[in-house]
Amino acid sequence: MRSFYLYIYINFNFFYLRLQQFRHSDQHVWRAAFCSCGTEGDPVWMGSISKAHSHVKELLSNAPVESVVRVTGTVSPRPLGQENPKMPTGDIEVKAETAEILNSCKKLPFEIKDFIKKSEALRMQYRYLDLRSSRLQSNLRLRSRVVMRMREYLCNLHGFVDVETPTLFKRTPGGAREFLVPSREAGKFYSLPQSPQQFKQLLMVGGLDRYFQVARCYRDEGSRPDRQPEFTQIDIEMSFVDQAGIQRLIEGLLQYSWPEERGSIMTPFPSMTYEEALAEYGTDKPDTRFGMKIMDISDVLRGSNIHFVQSALSYPHGSIRAICIPQGVRYLTNKDLESLKESAKSQFNQEIMEIIRRPDGSLKSLLTKFLGEKERSELIQALNMQEDDVVLLAAGEHKQVCSALGALRLLSADLLEAAGLALRDPTAFHFLWVVDFPLFLPKAENPTELESAHHPFTAPHPSDASLLYSDPTKVRSQHYDLVLNGNEVGGGSIRIHSAEQQRFVLEKVLKEDSEVLSHLIEALEFGAPPHGGIALGLDRLISLIVDAPSIRDVIAFPKSFRGRDLMGNAPDYVTSEELEPYHIQVSWPLEEKEAKKN
Amino acid sequence: MRSFYLYIYINFNFFYLRLQQFRHSDQHVWRAAFCSCGTEGDPVWMGSISKAHSHVKELLSNAPVESVVRVTGTVSPRPLGQENPKMPTGDIEVKAETAEILNSCKKLPFEIKDFIKKSEALRMQYRYLDLRSSRLQSNLRLRSRVVMRMREYLCNLHGFVDVETPTLFKRTPGGAREFLVPSREAGKFYSLPQSPQQFKQLLMVGGLDRYFQVARCYRDEGSRPDRQPEFTQIDIEMSFVDQAGIQRLIEGLLQYSWPEERGSIMTPFPSMTYEEALAEYGTDKPDTRFGMKIMDISDVLRGSNIHFVQSALSYPHGSIRAICIPQGVRYLTNKDLESLKESAKSQFNQEIMEIIRRPDGSLKSLLTKFLGEKERSELIQALNMQEDDVVLLAAGEHKQVCSALGALRLLSADLLEAAGLALRDPTAFHFLWVVDFPLFLPKAENPTELESAHHPFTAPHPSDASLLYSDPTKVRSQHYDLVLNGNEVGGGSIRIHSAEQQRFVLEKVLKEDSEVLSHLIEALEFGAPPHGGIALGLDRLISLIVDAPSIRDVIAFPKSFRGRDLMGNAPDYVTSEELEPYHIQVSWPLEEKEAKKN
Repeated sequence: MRSFYLYIYINFNFFYLRLQQFRHSDQHVWRAAFCSCGTEGDPVWMGSISKAHSHVKELLSNAPVESVVRVTGTVSPRPLGQENPKMPTGDIEVKAETAEILNSCKKLPFEIKDFIKKSEALRMQYRYLDLRSSRLQSNLRLRSRVVMRMREYLCNLHGFVDVETPTLFKRTPGGAREFLVPSREAGKFYSLPQSPQQFKQLLMVGGLDRYFQVARCYRDEGSRPDRQPEFTQIDIEMSFVDQAGIQRLIEGLLQYSWPEERGSIMTPFPSMTYEEALAEYGTDKPDTRFGMKIMDISDVLRGSNIHFVQSALSYPHGSIRAICIPQGVRYLTNKDLESLKESAKSQFNQEIMEIIRRPDGSLKSLLTKFLGEKERSELIQALNMQEDDVVLLAAGEHKQVCSALGALRLLSADLLEAAGLALRDPTAFHFLWVVDFPLFLPKAENPTELESAHHPFTAPHPSDASLLYSDPTKVRSQHYDLVLNGNEVGGGSIRIHSAEQQRFVLEKVLKEDSEVLSHLIEALEFGAPPHGGIALGLDRLISLIVDAPSIRDVIAFPKSFRGRDLMGNAPDYVTSEELEPYHIQVSWPLEEKEAKKN
Repeated sequence: MRSFYLYIYINFNFFYLRLQQFRHSDQHVWRAAFCSCGTEGDPVWMGSISKAHSHVKELLSNAPVESVVRVTGTVSPRPLGQENPKMPTGDIEVKAETAEILNSCKKLPFEIKDFIKKSEALRMQYRYLDLRSSRLQSNLRLRSRVVMRMREYLCNLHGFVDVETPTLFKRTPGGAREFLVPSREAGKFYSLPQSPQQFKQLLMVGGLDRYFQVARCYRDEGSRPDRQPEFTQIDIEMSFVDQAGIQRLIEGLLQYSWPEERGSIMTPFPSMTYEEALAEYGTDKPDTRFGMKIMDISDVLRGSNIHFVQSALSYPHGSIRAICIPQGVRYLTNKDLESLKESAKSQFNQEIMEIIRRPDGSLKSLLTKFLGEKERSELIQALNMQEDDVVLLAAGEHKQVCSALGALRLLSADLLEAAGLALRDPTAFHFLWVVDFPLFLPKAENPTELESAHHPFTAPHPSDASLLYSDPTKVRSQHYDLVLNGNEVGGGSIRIHSAEQQRFVLEKVLKEDSEVLSHLIEALEFGAPPHGGIALGLDRLISLIVDAPSIRDVIAFPKSFRGRDLMGNAPDYVTSEELEPYHIQVSWPLEEKEAKKN
């Protein structure tokens, strides 16, 4: 006889079941209510059906896999010696007396087993079947549990108030990636906000001084892999708090809600300035699970007579930097090294020079002939080069050099791991705060103009406040990012609470029309408390906790990377009558217009 | 010296404060962190500032009301005998040493006091100031607390999984009131669903057998008083459950999460069939806090020789019914009675006849001359008429008569209460289940066609299942409504889990195109478990708990009744460039087009 999910899905190999007593019934008469792993709440007994009446056996044997069956019978402990501690259902057995098929299952488009990797499109079309896989079951149940623990921490232990904010709002300045929602007033549109930023600040002005929300947010980025048009963030704002206050809160929050089965996390998290992160890791979200940091060797080579070195060092922010790939000779092929160099060239327009330390201790590189014995040994020492290590060296403008080497560091790590070198512990969780970001950045399209590095409500660093009026490019912000294993999982800031300063930033520094934010600026004039907050990207955080390759694996009904729901076929065409109340019509691209005509 | 909100808003009369110790500081040095009433979590000490240094006193006296101030000093218990148990801050005093204005407040557009009723439009424009009122503070904090308790009950005590479902989906059949969201694919639109109905059923198919979500829902109803374009429901679905199972769960949920300060509620809630509710209260959401039930007096008058009575009784569903307004003569004016009768005429096209019992026991009515002594006394007895009672009598088709009398019952209750008769206990909470609704109703525009009384996924009543195929109009459903004090606060049903039955309902009974729901029907074919659920209207429920006149009083940032955000000015115009990626353009109504040209 096959084994099966009792009262849920006739299945193979093993089953979980939850038993629910009949109301008003003898306690030995029961129905198995449903299968569920890892749920809390009602008592769960595990067992396996045996010794059933023959008609029960027959029914169960003939029911198609994944059918829903109700079984009535008696549960009892397994006979002594027959317990199987390796099975979740190994303690009890079930004496089935009657069985009834409640809903039978037609032929499945794929087997519901984790190891059967069907195309993601097929799995998304039949998402309700994929949801039965133990992987998705456990991801979604863990997500629910983690969020519940977060709520307990915020609401019950720290006096936060869960406040729902509107999602039908209006376009924020520069919010080019906000979905629009036509209203019944001709020409007027709501927009679906990218975050409750304005509302949470207004709540602080409104005296709800500890706000949080598990907030649905929207971002229309067209086709982007591993982004979703709607996503969820743990959104937090507090009055009378500083950067450290938010950081300690979040560390406590994560520690409290961290799922036991993933070990524990240490607090406080280490912290690094943006400048340090850029200089050592070439990114603002360093993966600190492994070394291979970027090293500055400008001073070692400064005396050399190498043309490209001298040329790089003559720039205002010129620098010579390198990463050292441990055992690179043994784990990386020449093709690997070529592809690394090519990637630096194509992505960052950065030439890379390679230095190899031979087993005999000597260096192999185009550089060596330009270096004296002393410089060579200084280089080996500065880079801590061991035999068979490969160094990738870049010369040029500081930020470009660091960014290129940062990207190569990650690519090399992937290559080393693919080749069998254990570099990053898959069970390790390295949280990191990155702080002291610049407040403004030159605009890409016109570097003489400035834009906010994060958003215009970010407060300047207290030590740089006066620079705001004299040299805004030098002002650091009170923005902080939370990074986990090289992924940004949160970001926030202390906000500007002075209307005057907010107006100065918008009008004088960013040259933006502050009219559209007039309600927020005016609110600051009514005794707004100092405040700050943070948002954690829940989808990304959970996907890292469960080690899922994509955020789609921790979302019940995700969209495809083109923003489509493949199960329900959304978005979809609507009739022009349906558009009428909203005073809009479709502007068909020319070829579609023609096609429609025919 | 005035009293004030410490560290928050300089204010008058009284204050609450929360004290936060400095990190690494002597425990007698403190800052008052924020004012908050009724929050849980960190310890809260209450106190009042006194004995301050003179420069502190001066600063605090001169700061504008509602400014934000930081005070440093020492907290100590009040001297013996000076405690004031009537004040929340009466136990301690504060010796202020320094004070600093963090943000001063400009002239307020209105005083932040509960009793000052400014126009709602002004209060919504300055919502962040209105939020500081103790009324909104307490409503929003209670809402957060109640929802948190609900989550504990569902998640921690009953193994429910909190699953987020998409809000960018596609138009549901008949979903004429769904907002549209243009996508980047020409002519294709997402829509913002009115509820997660489809998703929650698909989660049951997916084996997440106990789902809940505090779900944001959307409904575009244009201008409707006390409706919001976005609203929140406690959305629940379970597998292997029957109607009683859902009802007991919800009773437990409400009992567990009920705020202590509102007393306790008794379970189980009483239950009434739709037919009984209609016959006795003339509505499917009876306010059972008071009597004045509708009474059937057809039999009393059947023998009489009154033309309109005989005519009414000759209809297939003809009936003579009445309500008795206690002490109506003393509490209602003639004008009141006239307006009641007029309202029945204009809203229900129903004539009403009035009968008054005089203090001498005799009846005064146009009817009396047609009635014998025996009939008169039978009438008095049937209606239990006391002296000075007023009876409103209606004759005609059953449903029309009941609906009209049900409306008059509520109007009369309002009039009696306005005149000083205590009828409904304002602290009473009367929950009621209404069950056994019809599954289908004749369409208003074409009574030979049927539509779903609730939605097409509702399962038929088990006793009526065979009628589905022979006489669908007679089928009762497994839908249930939860009513509180005459307001519908929830509704749900056991769903159809057989694909065949679902297809029959859609295609044969409702004559709808089932193609658009093909994904749901197909899902049922893969061993969908029997399931059912419910949704509670959170905004309405909380507004009833706190006795707020409108759901706008329990929502942080509500829209006006025309769907506008008066603070941020949403919806708003967008440029045609912003519409371009969505392949839509505005169809301006003619006059606006002209105005735009000039």
